[in-house]
Amino acid sequence: MIHDKPLKHPRIHEESPTSAWRQTLNRIIFGAETKAGKAFDVVLIIMILLSIVTVMLDSVEAIRNQYRQLFYLSEWFFTLLFTLEYILRLLSVRRPLLYAQSFFGFVDLLSILPTYLGLLIPGVEYMLTLRILRLLRIFRVLKLSEYMREANVLLIALNNSFRKIAVFLYTVLTLVVVFGALMYIVEGSEAGFTSIPKSVYWTIVTITTVGYGDISPQTALGQLLASTIMIMGYGIIAVPTGIYSAELMKSHKQSRIDNRPCPDCGATGHDFDAVYCKYCGHRLNPRDE
Amino acid sequence: MIHDKPLKHPRIHEESPTSAWRQTLNRIIFGAETKAGKAFDVVLIIMILLSIVTVMLDSVEAIRNQYRQLFYLSEWFFTLLFTLEYILRLLSVRRPLLYAQSFFGFVDLLSILPTYLGLLIPGVEYMLTLRILRLLRIFRVLKLSEYMREANVLLIALNNSFRKIAVFLYTVLTLVVVFGALMYIVEGSEAGFTSIPKSVYWTIVTITTVGYGDISPQTALGQLLASTIMIMGYGIIAVPTGIYSAELMKSHKQSRIDNRPCPDCGATGHDFDAVYCKYCGHRLNPRDE
Amino acid sequence: MIHDKPLKHPRIHEESPTSAWRQTLNRIIFGAETKAGKAFDVVLIIMILLSIVTVMLDSVEAIRNQYRQLFYLSEWFFTLLFTLEYILRLLSVRRPLLYAQSFFGFVDLLSILPTYLGLLIPGVEYMLTLRILRLLRIFRVLKLSEYMREANVLLIALNNSFRKIAVFLYTVLTLVVVFGALMYIVEGSEAGFTSIPKSVYWTIVTITTVGYGDISPQTALGQLLASTIMIMGYGIIAVPTGIYSAELMKSHKQSRIDNRPCPDCGATGHDFDAVYCKYCGHRLNPRDE
Amino acid sequence: MIHDKPLKHPRIHEESPTSAWRQTLNRIIFGAETKAGKAFDVVLIIMILLSIVTVMLDSVEAIRNQYRQLFYLSEWFFTLLFTLEYILRLLSVRRPLLYAQSFFGFVDLLSILPTYLGLLIPGVEYMLTLRILRLLRIFRVLKLSEYMREANVLLIALNNSFRKIAVFLYTVLTLVVVFGALMYIVEGSEAGFTSIPKSVYWTIVTITTVGYGDISPQTALGQLLASTIMIMGYGIIAVPTGIYSAELMKSHKQSRIDNRPCPDCGATGHDFDAVYCKYCGHRLNPRDE
Repeated sequence: MIHDKPLKHPRIHEESPTSAWRQTLNRIIFGAETKAGKAFDVVLIIMILLSIVTVMLDSVEAIRNQYRQLFYLSEWFFTLLFTLEYILRLLSVRRPLLYAQSFFGFVDLLSILPTYLGLLIPGVEYMLTLRILRLLRIFRVLKLSEYMREANVLLIALNNSFRKIAVFLYTVLTLVVVFGALMYIVEGSEAGFTSIPKSVYWTIVTITTVGYGDISPQTALGQLLASTIMIMGYGIIAVPTGIYSAELMKSHKQSRIDNRPCPDCGATGHDFDAVYCKYCGHRLNPRDE
Repeated sequence: MIHDKPLKHPRIHEESPTSAWRQTLNRIIFGAETKAGKAFDVVLIIMILLSIVTVMLDSVEAIRNQYRQLFYLSEWFFTLLFTLEYILRLLSVRRPLLYAQSFFGFVDLLSILPTYLGLLIPGVEYMLTLRILRLLRIFRVLKLSEYMREANVLLIALNNSFRKIAVFLYTVLTLVVVFGALMYIVEGSEAGFTSIPKSVYWTIVTITTVGYGDISPQTALGQLLASTIMIMGYGIIAVPTGIYSAELMKSHKQSRIDNRPCPDCGATGHDFDAVYCKYCGHRLNPRDE
Repeated sequence: MIHDKPLKHPRIHEESPTSAWRQTLNRIIFGAETKAGKAFDVVLIIMILLSIVTVMLDSVEAIRNQYRQLFYLSEWFFTLLFTLEYILRLLSVRRPLLYAQSFFGFVDLLSILPTYLGLLIPGVEYMLTLRILRLLRIFRVLKLSEYMREANVLLIALNNSFRKIAVFLYTVLTLVVVFGALMYIVEGSEAGFTSIPKSVYWTIVTITTVGYGDISPQTALGQLLASTIMIMGYGIIAVPTGIYSAELMKSHKQSRIDNRPCPDCGATGHDFDAVYCKYCGHRLNPRDE
Repeated sequence: MIHDKPLKHPRIHEESPTSAWRQTLNRIIFGAETKAGKAFDVVLIIMILLSIVTVMLDSVEAIRNQYRQLFYLSEWFFTLLFTLEYILRLLSVRRPLLYAQSFFGFVDLLSILPTYLGLLIPGVEYMLTLRILRLLRIFRVLKLSEYMREANVLLIALNNSFRKIAVFLYTVLTLVVVFGALMYIVEGSEAGFTSIPKSVYWTIVTITTVGYGDISPQTALGQLLASTIMIMGYGIIAVPTGIYSAELMKSHKQSRIDNRPCPDCGATGHDFDAVYCKYCGHRLNPRDE
């Protein structure tokens, strides 16, 4: 589910015998430790956000008609800029193919390709929407920051509870199909439950407490069944929340446990700031962090 | 609520004096340890899912009209296949009646019966929807897998918090009836609150935060009352979630208990920081983590 | 908020010098320990539920028109029955006035009064809906049962977190008023935001994720603001849930802590089943439960 | 996020050489310890709430037309009252400018300014709605009360989980934009998904389980995508709730820490089961529970 490998960007190890300019370029483009690296990241984030805003506004008809020329120019500006960035990224790593095949390498390519393809093949306007995936590129910068440690805690807890959530999801999907089929029988086509897939769609809308109201049960029996589904949905939200809360608490606790044994009595479970064993009073070894 | 007994499938114990072919068949059909057993499970899951998709698509009028012949044939294919499977299951167990009466035995029968009955009694189209219950059969395969341990944790926590959730549900139902009656008095028929049952239905739609919007209060007093119900519903979702989270954490903790047996009395379940056995006072071996 | 006193029913202590029949009657009507007391409770619950169903069906016009006579008769049957019960309750306690003034005494009276008043004053049909409050009487029976211990845990946790939830609610109400006023300015009357109270109502519908859809923002700015409110509402549901979960866990833990100090080393925090001190190995005093 | 500084009101220290009347005034207006101070707070809260009700009712057209004169008079009554209070506040503090620049000083000014500006510049009716911000002033009184300790626990937990929630929010926003763009491609203008911003708005309405129903997918693929978004939204609500629950529990635990000071080094923060000081190894006094 959560793949760790493609997230590792192919940074060059300090000791490798590469040319100096490549090393410097790599630090600026992939790193965030140097001043230039940070500046690069900030400019990149701003450019990405601006290009996203452009893509979004471009889809509003009234605005597109008025600023068609501006959108066209800015789109090519962003595309050329990101193309230059892509080439620099390829140049700055020792194994460009590895980068190109990584998750972020693929996203980088995907953020420039649609504009070029739009030039070659006319009438693929909808493909241009793919440019919105540029948004994913911000996660790369985020990855370098101090926020990543927090994100990692969340991801680890998600990973640990993955199986429990899979069981939960399968149960919900079964409930949704069975109750959808029931509603199809009970309500029938007049109320909008024209087929089982549509009934299942309605059941999902209801059990997740979204409730659009475009389809709603008309018969007394249908409303009784709908009430059951709603209360069920209202209640079983407790399951994923409980799973995730318990998992997060566990990881909180695990990260806080000191594993130094007391040299005298062997007791563990001391606090991080403990100097003496709390059971026998013997001095503890200092923590080797 | 959660019945454990019918879930146990009637596996034959290795030491029982049955014919060899029955034992082999049993291992393939009911088990998942052997290679053939795993293959059987995978094929079965695929067949079940395909038949479910067929049933669902068959209910869409546009598709049914076009592929009527195909659906008819595939339906008989799946029914005959599952009938064969049912017979093999009956043959492979020592006490077929016990299997037939078990929960999954009943579901297996239910997944083939509707098609046969449709042959005998014309015009029972709606009964065919029962075939959707085939979906439940996948739980049998799931039961054998490593996912079951996770599901068990969830079920145990549900079971332990069952009474608390029952109290909660009764309270919610009382609230829903009392507020439903109040809305019936306040709003009356013009706004769609034509009867107490309908008002109660609306209150359920509102308190679970589903909110279809087919009925909605019109008077100021009704909207004030509705606001109260919404905020109440928004808040009391905390109750089942809290119950379940606390229960899950408890079972997490129980599974984290030290497994050092006392060298003197053999008791387990000591705390991580225990030095002496809490039952007989004998010194415990240090933990070898 | 949660008043404990009126819930105590005025049971007569065994040693008090009352007539024997009153004592027996009291045990049957108020208690659930004897066989007759349990039977009384079961019959009472069934009668209450039947009368509730009658009241609800009576409000459905189509059904009322058809079974008007039946509803009329059954209503008087239930009223006379509950009146008899009320008189018996008054007779069976030593201080009838104390019972009549208690919470359940008031509910008991309220469940028979509307029918009598309907006889005296014609045209008070809506008051008849008050009979739905009979539902509250089931809590009295529930109070005696083993489910009460669970309900108490939930109530104690609610009580303990009462202040935190009050702070949370006040913050939500402030948000709702301020954002409601903002939406009133931004959207104006055309979109249905005709006044601040109505805007506040809409904000409550949105922040609690109910979302009827009878009123919805039309302008871009309004939709942006609405998005903010939705995400806020989606997020702050975490607050009451977190409060309640933490409180429930605490009460779980407190009810599990043994406070026996070790006679030798004075250590506390032993498990309930501990016989020896886990820190020094000395025998603990037996628990005086 | 949560700024502590502006909340500190500029109370005069007892030992400062100010005139006695200013000290007394300060205690009454800013404090809540004296009888007069409490009375002042209660009257202030009532006045604020009354003025809020006036502002809200004034926005309802039917009511405004009927009581125009009354609203006009009461508005000036409240404005003059709050102006007097503002002047007294300025007088009662030693450094008025500091007060005027503080958060509450700004809110106080904002609650009287709109009425005066309405006098000077006609046609700024909408600005009058700013008076609703008077509601924020109640937090100042709340701040002095015992409820503040509870609010602080909630705020500290929010503050501690701020980074995790920021990561969560950014992920949700990315999901919302990407799925919004997808729905725009899949559904197109006919179903109401006229532009990417509008599609994103719909996705927010759906993922937060609000579900107005003003826009809803029509094609099968769109409904499948919508189902995915709903189940995702239903599930990821577990994330902020889990974060906040875990954080609150942690702060609960921290507040349960033993307050025995070490007789030798005076350090506190020992565990309940500690026998020796964990900082200097000296034996602790036994807990006198």
